[in-house]
Amino acid sequence: MAVYTEVSDEQLTIFLENFDLGQPMSFKGIAEGVENTNFLLKTKTGRYILTLYEKRVDEQDLPFFLGLIDHLSAHNIICPTPIHDKTGRSLSICAGRPAALFTFLDGMSITHPTKRHTHALGKELANFHIAGRSFNQTRPNSFSIAGMKKFYQQIEGNIESIEYGLCNLIENELEYLNKNWPQNLPTGIIHADLFPDNVFFLDDKISGLIDFYFACTDYLALDLAISLNAWCFDDNNEFCNKRASAFFAAYHNVRPIEEAEIEAMPILARAAALRFLLTRTNDWLLPNDTALVAKKDPKEYIQKLKFHQSIVESHTYGLVTA
Amino acid sequence: MAVYTEVSDEQLTIFLENFDLGQPMSFKGIAEGVENTNFLLKTKTGRYILTLYEKRVDEQDLPFFLGLIDHLSAHNIICPTPIHDKTGRSLSICAGRPAALFTFLDGMSITHPTKRHTHALGKELANFHIAGRSFNQTRPNSFSIAGMKKFYQQIEGNIESIEYGLCNLIENELEYLNKNWPQNLPTGIIHADLFPDNVFFLDDKISGLIDFYFACTDYLALDLAISLNAWCFDDNNEFCNKRASAFFAAYHNVRPIEEAEIEAMPILARAAALRFLLTRTNDWLLPNDTALVAKKDPKEYIQKLKFHQSIVESHTYGLVTA
Repeated sequence: MAVYTEVSDEQLTIFLENFDLGQPMSFKGIAEGVENTNFLLKTKTGRYILTLYEKRVDEQDLPFFLGLIDHLSAHNIICPTPIHDKTGRSLSICAGRPAALFTFLDGMSITHPTKRHTHALGKELANFHIAGRSFNQTRPNSFSIAGMKKFYQQIEGNIESIEYGLCNLIENELEYLNKNWPQNLPTGIIHADLFPDNVFFLDDKISGLIDFYFACTDYLALDLAISLNAWCFDDNNEFCNKRASAFFAAYHNVRPIEEAEIEAMPILARAAALRFLLTRTNDWLLPNDTALVAKKDPKEYIQKLKFHQSIVESHTYGLVTA
Repeated sequence: MAVYTEVSDEQLTIFLENFDLGQPMSFKGIAEGVENTNFLLKTKTGRYILTLYEKRVDEQDLPFFLGLIDHLSAHNIICPTPIHDKTGRSLSICAGRPAALFTFLDGMSITHPTKRHTHALGKELANFHIAGRSFNQTRPNSFSIAGMKKFYQQIEGNIESIEYGLCNLIENELEYLNKNWPQNLPTGIIHADLFPDNVFFLDDKISGLIDFYFACTDYLALDLAISLNAWCFDDNNEFCNKRASAFFAAYHNVRPIEEAEIEAMPILARAAALRFLLTRTNDWLLPNDTALVAKKDPKEYIQKLKFHQSIVESHTYGLVTA
């Protein structure tokens, strides 16, 4: 959410020599993308986003991410399209960092989604999963159960300062998930971070998806569980059945949700809640200088996790049955 | 240089109801303006900058700043023009903060100015000073000698950790400036922070000036001294006579520099160097969480101050004599 790397006008000019976009007319660092530095660039030929990949993104993963975005663009998923340079590459170097240039997407993030928004989301997520089927690269989910356990062990700081009993909650949950994790659900490319921040709307219609830097190969239904957490609770962290029903129905209409996926939804929703509880806990405990906008309260995900723990049957989520 | 205040889509919609600009199509926080939160807004009618004034800007000063920018725009100084709402006001409220909307300016800041750039700068600064003559509001300079002394006394942290002897250097300089401060130089509205960051160029021509939030009433020649410090030294803090000569000659051509102003230039240059030495020292010693991009090294201004202390005659600066 900040400009970690500054790019001088000379560095930009050198970078742009490899493209046929014309001289820069405007160039501004923007507060978008938690993991990277992003600039909004305007030239005679249009507006672009220049992304510099910072240390939190593994350079080894960049060909996967850029390949995926290219693939999605080619399969009618509206997203920032990588601009290829004169030699055909989308990944290059700017100001000493790995960098890529993308088309600019119009659209606004929605702070308070309604069922119209979650309906549009469900449809688009299903289209995304279908488009991902023909993508031939894979990437493991770093927030698998084992990944979350490892991440938890590395969190520095007093976790219990957030809420008394939080360590127990997390440890018990990890154990539960590990013992009860579903097997053999439909697998494919998932976005894995499809929060309202990462979906642009124009007139209640989705105008694009952004920020694919957590995308990975995992259960497709885990993506549904992530969006359920991110889109279907109100400001008081109360579950919104209408939003969830609209979301699942729209998704199901494009890619039918299998019975096993429906059954697994409570445990997948718990895993998704735990994943964001862990990263928010980590961010919360970090020294202030790495947080560039207001930190997000991890307690939101304690509440959501406890809600999911209370769910006995998937239809409570408004999930359609086949 | 950061998004201190977040603005939701709903807050933006409420704010825009007072304007005739159409629905928002894109809205991004940008890393511009050290003191404020800035967003780039696109609607059907064009692109705008939304500025939210944060606590470092005194709300009492906002009518002065906005009035000045309106005045400058009306007098052919290209700068972001305040958009007046349906009731004619340029200052309103957004997300609970005082806010104003401006036209968007194309252009790029120059990292390494040449004499072509400083020539353009000199001309534009003289135009700015002339345009300011007919502006009927005044605002005292918070970095007058007395203001700098007060600021110095309020700096918290170990100043000597920056460089041994820095306290002595500052205290002696404040005393010297106080004893030798020139009297009765031409006075008017000065920008007071006309660094390369705040000047946009397109094809080596100035396309606009920005960031008027240090503007005040003081000696016009102090603005020359500030730009001399900000534009006429190289990366090694060596003085660039060619850039300075081009700057002064272009300025002089539009508003002749008076003999008394020429004579006063070394002491004004010392005052300008001290002013930025003090604010950079303060920023350097602040805890990290308030710095959102790399802090600027105060030592740069120790070197510049010492250079100015060594100047005996103004023509060393490449200053024309009448």
